[in-house]
Amino acid sequence: MILDICPSPTLYPYYKKENDTVIVVDVFRASATMCAMLHNGATAVIPVANIEEARAYKQAGYLVGAERKTRKCDFADFGNSPFDYTREIVAGKEVVFTTTNGTKAIEMGRESKHLYIGTFPNIDALADKCMESSERIVVICAGWNNRVNLEDTLFGGAFAERLAGKTDLTIGSDAVRIALSLWQQAKSNPLDYLQQSEHWQRLIDNHAVGDAAYCLQENTVTVVPCYHKEEKKLRV
Amino acid sequence: MILDICPSPTLYPYYKKENDTVIVVDVFRASATMCAMLHNGATAVIPVANIEEARAYKQAGYLVGAERKTRKCDFADFGNSPFDYTREIVAGKEVVFTTTNGTKAIEMGRESKHLYIGTFPNIDALADKCMESSERIVVICAGWNNRVNLEDTLFGGAFAERLAGKTDLTIGSDAVRIALSLWQQAKSNPLDYLQQSEHWQRLIDNHAVGDAAYCLQENTVTVVPCYHKEEKKLRV
Repeated sequence: MILDICPSPTLYPYYKKENDTVIVVDVFRASATMCAMLHNGATAVIPVANIEEARAYKQAGYLVGAERKTRKCDFADFGNSPFDYTREIVAGKEVVFTTTNGTKAIEMGRESKHLYIGTFPNIDALADKCMESSERIVVICAGWNNRVNLEDTLFGGAFAERLAGKTDLTIGSDAVRIALSLWQQAKSNPLDYLQQSEHWQRLIDNHAVGDAAYCLQENTVTVVPCYHKEEKKLRV
Repeated sequence: MILDICPSPTLYPYYKKENDTVIVVDVFRASATMCAMLHNGATAVIPVANIEEARAYKQAGYLVGAERKTRKCDFADFGNSPFDYTREIVAGKEVVFTTTNGTKAIEMGRESKHLYIGTFPNIDALADKCMESSERIVVICAGWNNRVNLEDTLFGGAFAERLAGKTDLTIGSDAVRIALSLWQQAKSNPLDYLQQSEHWQRLIDNHAVGDAAYCLQENTVTVVPCYHKEEKKLRV
């Protein structure tokens, strides 16, 4: 099995190959939040790219999560905190979701063979899913406004190590080596390591730092959100 | 002083700000080779983007260095080894130069306030040059075919550490933190660390591994190639 890591959605054309399985990771916080929705019984997540589309869904009666620059959009039911999406509210429902960075990464990878949402809370379930059928996997880091970020790259390294423990893994490019180097430095305490990151300050500024520990905790859920091209929805 | 690192030329639009000083780094081997040319008395380096242009210069009587995929182009006088450009051959001459990745990075940054070529062999001279007038510096990593690579990112970390030793340095983004993390792991022996890199294998395959040690040795030259927009040439 080959693993590559694409450090920014903008770079995916240079990492893309036929029959890729793509994993979209947005550690703070969209990936964990989408996992929480499906874990809590939402029937699907409908990722949309822009605010206007999300607002139209809201007017049509859907539950809508919408975040820009770490803040909940006024018109929306929820922001980007995994704790917002409780079982009482989302079970049995479809949830429309748009975030600053996660959506672009999904758009870049939507034509791949499989597209999964991955992050620390579902890391082992994700690795098992990839083991089922994938020959080449590319982790697309959502980053921040097309720039690279520390937390998504770090997850790439954690996932590379996890997969290497399960199969004979071929490293696809230097991006994986970079991510593995970071993970070696961070793995004893990722929460502590990431306090230097740009996103950490944004979480503090928006009173969302309580989400960070959740977003970094491994294996709290077993769902792997999977993109269904024909209906443009993520389901378990 | 603010330092940022742009991990791939393609991403520069997302790292760009007004009045940037840009440093183009292509550790293996274009940056060291351009430094060697000017160190050995070449009066200018004329960077060109494509083979056709380089061939036209050759037909017009210029000395031409041209490399693609780690190999010297047949029509050229030199490839991309710093050892090719001896004082006997290049002193007093202008040298036309095109390489796989270095040229694109120069193109992306050519409109910046200053554009310098930097790498390990001129790292201290480069830091001194930046201290003269720069408020914000962006290291553009040449990468490999728009993908990120280990060696250019590593140089970004080394340079961040060097500048931080001279001035009160503000870290521009997570890309700098990633580079610093790599440098912490590699600095005791960069040559050893980089033997895992993609480029190392290409250097071996093309019998160019002897250049690697030269490209990683600090402060063997004091030249800082500087791009002159109006004449599209690099001079000391």
